[in-house]
Amino acid sequence: MSKTLQNIKLAVDAIVFGYQQNELNVLLIKQKFDGDTDQWALPGGLVQNEESLTEAVNRELLEETGIQLQYLEQLYTFGDQLDRDHRGRVVTVAYFGIVNPKGMEPAAGSDADEAHWFPISEVPILAFDHTKILDVALTRLQAKLNYQPIGFDLLDEQFPFSDLESLYRTILGKEIDRRNFRKKILSFGILEETNEKRKIGSGRPATLFKFNKNKYKELEQEGFSFEIKFA
Amino acid sequence: MSKTLQNIKLAVDAIVFGYQQNELNVLLIKQKFDGDTDQWALPGGLVQNEESLTEAVNRELLEETGIQLQYLEQLYTFGDQLDRDHRGRVVTVAYFGIVNPKGMEPAAGSDADEAHWFPISEVPILAFDHTKILDVALTRLQAKLNYQPIGFDLLDEQFPFSDLESLYRTILGKEIDRRNFRKKILSFGILEETNEKRKIGSGRPATLFKFNKNKYKELEQEGFSFEIKFA
Repeated sequence: MSKTLQNIKLAVDAIVFGYQQNELNVLLIKQKFDGDTDQWALPGGLVQNEESLTEAVNRELLEETGIQLQYLEQLYTFGDQLDRDHRGRVVTVAYFGIVNPKGMEPAAGSDADEAHWFPISEVPILAFDHTKILDVALTRLQAKLNYQPIGFDLLDEQFPFSDLESLYRTILGKEIDRRNFRKKILSFGILEETNEKRKIGSGRPATLFKFNKNKYKELEQEGFSFEIKFA
Repeated sequence: MSKTLQNIKLAVDAIVFGYQQNELNVLLIKQKFDGDTDQWALPGGLVQNEESLTEAVNRELLEETGIQLQYLEQLYTFGDQLDRDHRGRVVTVAYFGIVNPKGMEPAAGSDADEAHWFPISEVPILAFDHTKILDVALTRLQAKLNYQPIGFDLLDEQFPFSDLESLYRTILGKEIDRRNFRKKILSFGILEETNEKRKIGSGRPATLFKFNKNKYKELEQEGFSFEIKFA
């Protein structure tokens, strides 16, 4: 063990993605107490002595943005770059999550001056190493799309297949092979065709689908892995 | 930010798996300075002020076991259970890796009384929350087998196919469908048949295979995902 007293602070940061039809956003704040920079940053702050890491990240998020998520997943702990915070050594445990931001208007709280959703393509250079952290989170989110049906929580309960396509195209940031995608997704048996149709644009009304969570859970327990390959 | 001074210590722990023909081991130590327990634990300790997390875990591992790994991967940061260490609040960043332990005899160093490889099936109840941490690491290792060719580093450069089968069977802790496994692995094109054969037991000599790392890297860049399903 170290002979000298440990002088390392522990923080948490939250990368909250918001997805709405054709747009991927991320939640950013301007810190009130960081006088010498005018930069945007991820919501986050120091862990308190009597709270768990999970409690800490949820508290910081609520305090700084007014937003709460049902579930944040631990992403990675950033502690290899010793000077990542100019105020002293801080190791941060990053968490990420994704929500449908409809009705979730950020409200800058006690610790933040401003809080906003930024389209991913318009994110400015962030404070500290937050640009790198956001990049790691985005890569993880994209990877997860390939093996977990996270996307379904972001759509309406009943949706035309094209909405699911848009979601994948938007988050992955590239075109997908629509025919293979449809074939693959439907082959899993986790989507149910409903009797409803919706008129979109000038074409024929599109069949609406529904995600069958029970079927997915069943398959998951059998060792099923939701796997989509994009050429 | 917290109004009171933060009083949380930051540690690292290493879960080092050793694989040899038909046996999965994990590296454990007995701590010298933990007077009131006689329990085995994972190698690890507090992070020093001037070292990165990666440096810390490698240093602790070397100090306590004499063993060094080329690569340790960050597993998870355990900080939700406030009393996981009875000496005060400690959050630990766990790293894991796997090696061929041939020629790697642990030598208990300055901080440890004993250091040994334990077969996974014979691991005693560990100190702190280390039983849980080991469990998370094993689950991650098993999951990785399904999408990364980690296994190949643990075999001889040329190996009969049955060695690869044993590796999967041993780490997953269950029988696998040999025929499907062989078909799937060979379909990836990342194994090369050599002209060498080896006599195993009383049967016909078995063809030896070689892992084609260049081919794997090539496929990986094309978005190939090494995916094996076990029914």
